[in-house]
Amino acid sequence: MQLAFSAADIAAIVHPKSIKGTTSETIRDLAALRAAKPGDLSFLGNPKYKTEVAATTASVVLLPLDYVGEPSPGQQFLFVEKPSVALAHVCARIEQLLWPKPAAGIHPTAVIATGARIAPSATIGPFCVIEEGATIGERTHVQAQAFIGRNASIGSDCWLMPRVTVTTECVVRDRVRLQPGVVVGADGFGYEFVAGRHEKVPQVGNVVIENDVEIGANSTLDRARFSQTVVGEGTKIDNLVQIAHNVRIGRHCLICSQAGISGSTTVEDYVVLGGQAGLAGHLTVGKGSKIDGQSGINTDLAPGSFMKGTPALPYNLEQRINVLRKRIPELFKRVDSLEAELSGLKKPSAP
Amino acid sequence: MQLAFSAADIAAIVHPKSIKGTTSETIRDLAALRAAKPGDLSFLGNPKYKTEVAATTASVVLLPLDYVGEPSPGQQFLFVEKPSVALAHVCARIEQLLWPKPAAGIHPTAVIATGARIAPSATIGPFCVIEEGATIGERTHVQAQAFIGRNASIGSDCWLMPRVTVTTECVVRDRVRLQPGVVVGADGFGYEFVAGRHEKVPQVGNVVIENDVEIGANSTLDRARFSQTVVGEGTKIDNLVQIAHNVRIGRHCLICSQAGISGSTTVEDYVVLGGQAGLAGHLTVGKGSKIDGQSGINTDLAPGSFMKGTPALPYNLEQRINVLRKRIPELFKRVDSLEAELSGLKKPSAP
Amino acid sequence: MQLAFSAADIAAIVHPKSIKGTTSETIRDLAALRAAKPGDLSFLGNPKYKTEVAATTASVVLLPLDYVGEPSPGQQFLFVEKPSVALAHVCARIEQLLWPKPAAGIHPTAVIATGARIAPSATIGPFCVIEEGATIGERTHVQAQAFIGRNASIGSDCWLMPRVTVTTECVVRDRVRLQPGVVVGADGFGYEFVAGRHEKVPQVGNVVIENDVEIGANSTLDRARFSQTVVGEGTKIDNLVQIAHNVRIGRHCLICSQAGISGSTTVEDYVVLGGQAGLAGHLTVGKGSKIDGQSGINTDLAPGSFMKGTPALPYNLEQRINVLRKRIPELFKRVDSLEAELSGLKKPSAP
Repeated sequence: MQLAFSAADIAAIVHPKSIKGTTSETIRDLAALRAAKPGDLSFLGNPKYKTEVAATTASVVLLPLDYVGEPSPGQQFLFVEKPSVALAHVCARIEQLLWPKPAAGIHPTAVIATGARIAPSATIGPFCVIEEGATIGERTHVQAQAFIGRNASIGSDCWLMPRVTVTTECVVRDRVRLQPGVVVGADGFGYEFVAGRHEKVPQVGNVVIENDVEIGANSTLDRARFSQTVVGEGTKIDNLVQIAHNVRIGRHCLICSQAGISGSTTVEDYVVLGGQAGLAGHLTVGKGSKIDGQSGINTDLAPGSFMKGTPALPYNLEQRINVLRKRIPELFKRVDSLEAELSGLKKPSAP
Repeated sequence: MQLAFSAADIAAIVHPKSIKGTTSETIRDLAALRAAKPGDLSFLGNPKYKTEVAATTASVVLLPLDYVGEPSPGQQFLFVEKPSVALAHVCARIEQLLWPKPAAGIHPTAVIATGARIAPSATIGPFCVIEEGATIGERTHVQAQAFIGRNASIGSDCWLMPRVTVTTECVVRDRVRLQPGVVVGADGFGYEFVAGRHEKVPQVGNVVIENDVEIGANSTLDRARFSQTVVGEGTKIDNLVQIAHNVRIGRHCLICSQAGISGSTTVEDYVVLGGQAGLAGHLTVGKGSKIDGQSGINTDLAPGSFMKGTPALPYNLEQRINVLRKRIPELFKRVDSLEAELSGLKKPSAP
Repeated sequence: MQLAFSAADIAAIVHPKSIKGTTSETIRDLAALRAAKPGDLSFLGNPKYKTEVAATTASVVLLPLDYVGEPSPGQQFLFVEKPSVALAHVCARIEQLLWPKPAAGIHPTAVIATGARIAPSATIGPFCVIEEGATIGERTHVQAQAFIGRNASIGSDCWLMPRVTVTTECVVRDRVRLQPGVVVGADGFGYEFVAGRHEKVPQVGNVVIENDVEIGANSTLDRARFSQTVVGEGTKIDNLVQIAHNVRIGRHCLICSQAGISGSTTVEDYVVLGGQAGLAGHLTVGKGSKIDGQSGINTDLAPGSFMKGTPALPYNLEQRINVLRKRIPELFKRVDSLEAELSGLKKPSAP
């Protein structure tokens, strides 16, 4: 997408504390410092790239307040508290251009049950199916090809992208964004072993997604065996994540891609779960814990834990073991030598 | 969902061996012992919660035959062989209320090829696409937005939830339940490296899903390069699982979430594969083997194996190594000390 | 599917260098050497199965030029450069029978925005949604229930299988095959932590899929924070793979199932990433590197690296450590013994 912001437009979005230099270029794109050319907006998000600022040919650069340096001719520096946050505000403006707010209303192809209640300001896209008793809140956008089951409830100001499924009785509160292909409310994986066969335990609870949650593409959240599977307010879940039945995730957690949380585990507020990490079932992961990518957790964790490995150990211990691990072949040789030497020490006394 | 069972309704479902106490409460919900309040049905599924029975205020409690204790006033105990199985039977009744059997028939929006054969008692939901030569069996429910490819065959009493895909020539037998987003019959991942490029090996076999299989949300099963990829009778597969081309899974296996099985591997009957576990290609995993979560298997396994780790070792050995692993830093120090001491022992003889 | 090739039909497809024997059987199926019966085509793809050729009852067998042996009566041997490539050519012919080229045109149920441009030779299936400004190239087949967002561009000769999503502004070039449920252009996972909450960083870049790429079922590719997420020409991606925002994958890579690549990582040409492997963010994986299944990479890799484990080590070192790992319990005992012996050696001198 071709942008067309003036430097003044950018300043009006990011509210700089101070400005150095001027540019008459139209801002047509965003780029990293090194890749930027005239007509680009760039930013210093990570201090390790500080030396790239002097050489960048970006027309406008977002910089932290403590950056020391002068713009080139025809270049403008905007000094802000946090350049990455300022950039996010510019991106939010661009996002509105990429996805303009659709008109309210129900696409004529959508199949809406008589007893479903759709807020007048909501937008329902083509080929959506909304069953009996389901409700869709004000200004919510159900984009296309979504399935909303019986008595499911979607709050206001949500955005359900194409091909989202929210099944019977599940609850999605306000300002929730569900990426394409998300499944909220698949059956939990529960069976009783009876006479040599796995007999299904019907899963009759639901899923509750609290305010301001975002869930990534093709992630799956299982309905509770009974009662609820819960994702707390403000938690962000990446793509291809599995949340099993009766899991309770707290507020403001980050769950990275392809992580999995097994049944009935509780994750407290502000936990960060790295990509491809796995939590066993029936655990509690304490508030603010961080779990490194690919780690496997099979015990409760105290608040503030920082864990790594499978089975996971405290991060620093795991790192130390990983350094020593490379020297295990050498360690075996050293023990061989010790044994040989000791055996040599004992022998001389024999003859 | 608000339930309305009498205590007598519950007893009629679970057929208790004996009953203690009476309650006039209407059962409106299910709850764990500790969370339950009057109007709830609860159960003692795991003996470790036995002490919670005396304190629960659930109106009806399902208990094992050997439980010793008396109900509170207004509370009823139902004694059954296996409380968790009894609860599953109650849940099965609730499931029928949550998902009432739909009327037979084809939704007017569905696109059904002239040559497709749909049993008169089947239900085809909105926006389904059923291609030429496909067949749908008696009482099968294809819920919404499903795609059934040319000559694919779905048996009787199946439930295909929203957005399921079953591609050309694939076979799904009877009483199979496919959760939302399942893909049966994607192309296997096969290429020949020719002149610096990966040339596709067309995948012209199919997938066969035997009776009573269940497959979780967004799981993917690849069609065979030629011949068949097979999932055996009664096997249950969780969400986001990958089954590669020409895999053969036996009967009554449990494959947990995010596990992956590489091409041409055979998994015999009654195998349990933990979450995020991976099997390399062209292996045989013997009958009744158990593989712990996140494990990686790259050799054949004898029947009854119990494995853990990557690459996996017998469970008890892996557990023992995991205990010792934490002490590896200490072990290096001990070897340092031994070397120093031994060197000290040898020196004194010098002067 | 029942085939009906004559031996001459097979020869016309594979162009054998030489032929031994004749058969009058109609070829009705493909089978491995051991499983084949009269009427089957088989092949010797892997030399380790060479001894099975003499016993096979396949009617036609594809063999390498250096195979020494005679066909049975009524059996035909076709000698070719690479039997597995020859088989792939036969499979390509069968593929055309399984999925005959659909007629050009737009299914009457598809919802196509006025400003979308669909090539006259393209095929758009039922329930597809194609938004304003999107373009679909010549002979491309968008099979069913796909979603193509605003200004997205799909090249020529592509095949988008059922339920594929390509969001706003994303670019798919020519001869790309997207398996069912693929999501191209979900939001990248980016947040700024502000006042105790994760504030979304809008993701306003796109995804570019170059020529001849194939992407497996339910895989997800995130749009860039800004600029582009790129998959290079000829790269093949398996099912349930996660490609994060701003990742750049080179040409002719193989990314196996359930692998994940974190944000801003660059994967150079001809890299092979094993199943369930994970790459951390902001890395460069050098050209031609191979990464074993389930490995975790958290450092840059030089071209031609061959890595295994988490965190990954050079393959041979990791293999050696894995052999020694089983002996760690024994190693602890040996160090215990050494300490005891050394302590014994020192004591005698005391009295």
